[in-house]
Order: sequence, then structure tokens, then C-alpha cells
Amino acid sequence: MAKLEDVAKLANVSKTTVSRVLNHRGYLSQKTIDRVHAAMRELNYRPNVIAQQLYKNQTNLIGILLPTVANPFFGEVTLELERRLYQLGYKVLIGNSMNDPSKEADYLEQLLNKQVDGLIVGTHNQGIQEYQNLNLPIVSIDRIVNGDIPTVASDNYAGGRLATERLIERGAQKIIHINGPQSLPITAARRREAYEDVMNAHHLTPLTYEVDFNIAETVKKQKLAQILAAHPDVEGIFASNDTDAALLMQLAAERGLRIPEDLLLIGYDGTKLVRELVPQLTTVIQPVDQIAATAVKVLQERIAGQPTKAEYILPVQLSVGTTA
Amino acid sequence: MAKLEDVAKLANVSKTTVSRVLNHRGYLSQKTIDRVHAAMRELNYRPNVIAQQLYKNQTNLIGILLPTVANPFFGEVTLELERRLYQLGYKVLIGNSMNDPSKEADYLEQLLNKQVDGLIVGTHNQGIQEYQNLNLPIVSIDRIVNGDIPTVASDNYAGGRLATERLIERGAQKIIHINGPQSLPITAARRREAYEDVMNAHHLTPLTYEVDFNIAETVKKQKLAQILAAHPDVEGIFASNDTDAALLMQLAAERGLRIPEDLLLIGYDGTKLVRELVPQLTTVIQPVDQIAATAVKVLQERIAGQPTKAEYILPVQLSVGTTA
Repeated sequence: MAKLEDVAKLANVSKTTVSRVLNHRGYLSQKTIDRVHAAMRELNYRPNVIAQQLYKNQTNLIGILLPTVANPFFGEVTLELERRLYQLGYKVLIGNSMNDPSKEADYLEQLLNKQVDGLIVGTHNQGIQEYQNLNLPIVSIDRIVNGDIPTVASDNYAGGRLATERLIERGAQKIIHINGPQSLPITAARRREAYEDVMNAHHLTPLTYEVDFNIAETVKKQKLAQILAAHPDVEGIFASNDTDAALLMQLAAERGLRIPEDLLLIGYDGTKLVRELVPQLTTVIQPVDQIAATAVKVLQERIAGQPTKAEYILPVQLSVGTTA
Repeated sequence: MAKLEDVAKLANVSKTTVSRVLNHRGYLSQKTIDRVHAAMRELNYRPNVIAQQLYKNQTNLIGILLPTVANPFFGEVTLELERRLYQLGYKVLIGNSMNDPSKEADYLEQLLNKQVDGLIVGTHNQGIQEYQNLNLPIVSIDRIVNGDIPTVASDNYAGGRLATERLIERGAQKIIHINGPQSLPITAARRREAYEDVMNAHHLTPLTYEVDFNIAETVKKQKLAQILAAHPDVEGIFASNDTDAALLMQLAAERGLRIPEDLLLIGYDGTKLVRELVPQLTTVIQPVDQIAATAVKVLQERIAGQPTKAEYILPVQLSVGTTA
């Protein structure tokens, strides 16, 4: 394999000149540049990209740390993030960090060790010390990390209000909401606030169950079945997300409940995939494209050392199917 | 920020010794190792990982290039690949390469430039020159690249046979199969062979439609609607994948066709997500965990320069719902 000195020799320039051509640094005549390029082509020279990264102190890598790409919402967010970052010259490292704070800490170490230029995080782990470093090039999606790191999220309060008002308009009074544990610092907690505010405003009694997103599907199904069994008179459910809503559809059918006649049901997320697979589900659509575009824009600002806001809230909309 | 020489000074050793501790190279007494680690801790020293990679000539990065993580099959495959590779000390770079041969070529350049230690590819692009380099640390999933690069796939012929036999057993005679374009070098083409063999063995006329996986959903829906309209007497459909099957369920409902009474339907892939969202769909389950485990094992063998087989074929099974 050809080396840098072979290129220098053939082009009749110094090794420093070849290095400057490779790194686009310093003044060089077009003639010199052309001669070096011609020598590289002739020798089929491959620059040592790792050495160039070392020199430039940047890797053009962005880490994305989300609970799991196998979830339709995070899968579509990852696709859109990667598509946009690739156009900007970045490649994307992913980590599926569900239930694994040590993995999240590991990715942060990577950032601190300059193995990636920036991080986009959306995991649910807590108490990770490394986030205390200020002004890191980090953007959070759907999660509040701390006051320093900007959060990009859809308007969860508006989504919670849309869903609850829809269930009430359709005639439900006994309405249950399912959300994640209140201890988690996730923006989805605002759906619960909105649900409880709307219920109270209508003189209805809110009842929120906490079911952790990160638990195994069989355990989740059991928990949802227990909720249905404990409330045979429930008239509406505002679920945490669309996959939970799909589980509730099955469980309702097993109990002989017809949807929407006996039970109204609304999901959350409204991904393209779920709207394709379960078009009958009424759900709140999170704007995946806008979330990804905003996260990338804000991350670029962080990398450039520009000021950013604490939060970026994006609009949601209701997708009306037949379940509510 | 502390430098390597600061660590050397405080530990009262040479810079070379600190470097050997960092890279686990050469003979070192435990006393020296401990003294260097203590100095690193005291100075909060962060090793330059990029420089270490340059020294070791490896990045501990693996590239994964699949059509899109937003597809449930590729999303679950990516999750399982990343989980296994992370346990082996690798991090994962992803690229969603659908319809983009230049992006695929770009990732291959990365491999050739030693920016990644290996690649797992499952894209549908063709004619990429870089694959002609022999013995590259590449593994293909579901796709035949060339005779040199090993392919990991489920038993598509057995899957095609299972699906077609099921439709015939349930009483269908006019059965349509939908598959990708025959020009694509994908292992899914073997489902078509199996379908046509089983139909012929039962003295039934096979009819395969080619619908490209990579086209936009609206265009795909239109094409599938045209197929249904052209064959009002069709009794069974063996679809390319589960999301196409879900589209066909909607289109059938729009035409007033009841499933399974008027039309039997079988999908393909059988991901956890689709079985959760559309449990009524009869489908062929590809063994995602086994595919990922095999791809990782074979990639390790390629990286180590060990011989590998041309193909690794993994068993499928039928998931019986109510649609067929």
C-alpha cells in the first residue's frame, strides 16, 4: 500500500505539502494541489483518515442514544436523524440503552474522550454524573436531563388535552390514563398533567396508572390486563403509546369488549408504521420529522458554541380512526 | 487539561511507560501500572482515544448498512446486532441506505480507509465496485453480494413453501404471490421459487407480481390496489412482508372482502412488533435473534481472517393467526 512519502516523492514536494493538501490547510498553488492529487491517484493512495481526525480534533461522528430502535417511534426518529446528519457530513453511532445506565455513561465517556463530536440522547436513565459537565454538545429528545442541556419534544400537554377532550366529547366519563412512572424526568409526564386538568375541569375523577415503558412485553400485558379487570365499567382509555394501545385492543377483545361501542381508546405517537398497520387507532401524532430536524439544528448550534434554549416544543395533531 | 507528560512526571516514569500502560503493551510491573493509574486519577487525565486507535490500527466500530431502521424487521435486526456487538466491545455506526448506492459506496470507503473494523450490509443496491476487494470483513444479511462475501439469511425457500401450502390447505386455488423485482440479488427471490414449485406440484397456476420494497408507501398501496382490482376472484395472497400484508387487509376491507372468508392472507417476517400490533395476521417468522447472532459470529471470523462459508441459512416457522 502506498504511503504519504511515496506521494511526496512522485509529486516532487515535501511530506508537509502532501499533508497540507490532504487537510486543506495553508496556502497552496492550484498547480501543487493538482500534482499531489495526480500522484495520489496514480499510486491509489488512501489517506489515513484516523490520523486526519487526530489532527483536526473532530471525528464527524454523532452518537444517538435512544431506548431501542425496534420501537416504531424511536426507529422513525433515528431514521430521520441519520438522514439529516448524513447530509451534513456526519455519520451516526447508535446505542440502544434501555435499562442500562452504564451503557449511557459509556457513550458520554466517548463524547468526553472526543470519539464523537456530539450526542443526541433520549434514554430514561437517571443520575449519570457525566451530564454535569456544562456546555457539552448534547441535545435531548423527549427527556429533561438538566437545565443546561436543551430538550426537543412535542407538545405533550397539548397532546394530553386533545386526547382527553376527544374521549369526553365521544361520551366517556370513566376515563383511565396510563403513563410512565412519575419519577422519570420525561416530557410525557405533561400528558398526565393535561389529562388531570381536563378531567377536573369537567368534574370527572382522573385515574392515572403508572406502567414503565422499559418493562418486558409479557409483564406489560399482565399489568394492562389487571387494569381492565379492576375497572369493568371503564369507558375510555388514553394509553401511553400506540403499542400499549394495540395490546389494550387485544385484551379488550379477550374480555368481550367492543371498541368503540363499549370502550373508547386513544394511543400516542402516531408513527407512519402504526398508522399503516393499525389505521383504525385514534392517536396523537408526534411530528417525527420536525423533532429530528430541530434536534439536528440545535446540536449544530451546540457544537458551534452558540447559545441554545432550554426547550423546543413542537406541535402535535390528532389522527382520528374508529377507536375513539 | 492534563497531558500524557504530566502523568509521566507525577508517576515518575517515562512517557513511553504511560503509553504502554494505556495500550496494555509490553512487560510492566503491577507497581508501575498502579502508580500510573493513580497519577491519571489524580490529574483527571483523559487518554486520547483517537491516538490509541491510530496506534492499534483498529477503531472498534462496526458499520451496519440496512435499507431503513424504521422498517420493523430491520429495526429489530439492528437492535439485536447492536446489543451483541456492544457486548463484544464494539460500537455500531448505522446507515439507512434505501435507494442510495452512493451512500453504500461511501460506507465501503470507510471500511477501506479503516474507519470501521467491519461492515454488516443488507441493502438492495447493485454494481458497487468496492465489493470486488476480496476477503473484506463484510457479512451480508438477506442479500447475495458476490461469492466472496458470506450471506446470512433465513430459509426463504422453506418459508415460501410453508406459506403456499397453508393457503392451499385452507382451500385457496387462485393464489397470488408478491415479491421484489427478480433483478435484485436478494434471498427473498427463493420464496418465489418455492411458491411456484408448490403451485405447479398442485397443478395450480402461479402468478407472481413484482413490487419493489423501496418505493414510497402511497405508490405501493396503489400497486397493491391494482392487483386486487385486476383479480376479483383471487382466493389467497402470499405477501412480500407484513407491512404489505397490512396494506392488503385495508384494501380488501375497502373492496368489501372479508378475511379469511373471501380472501386468505399470509405475510412475511413475523417481527415481535407486528405480532403485537396485528396478531390476527398469519405470517412466516424470520429468526431475528439467530440472524443477528450468526452475522456477528461470522463477522468476527472474517475480522480474524478465518475461513467462512458462502451461506448460513436459518430456520423459519409459521405464526398462525386468523387471516389464513
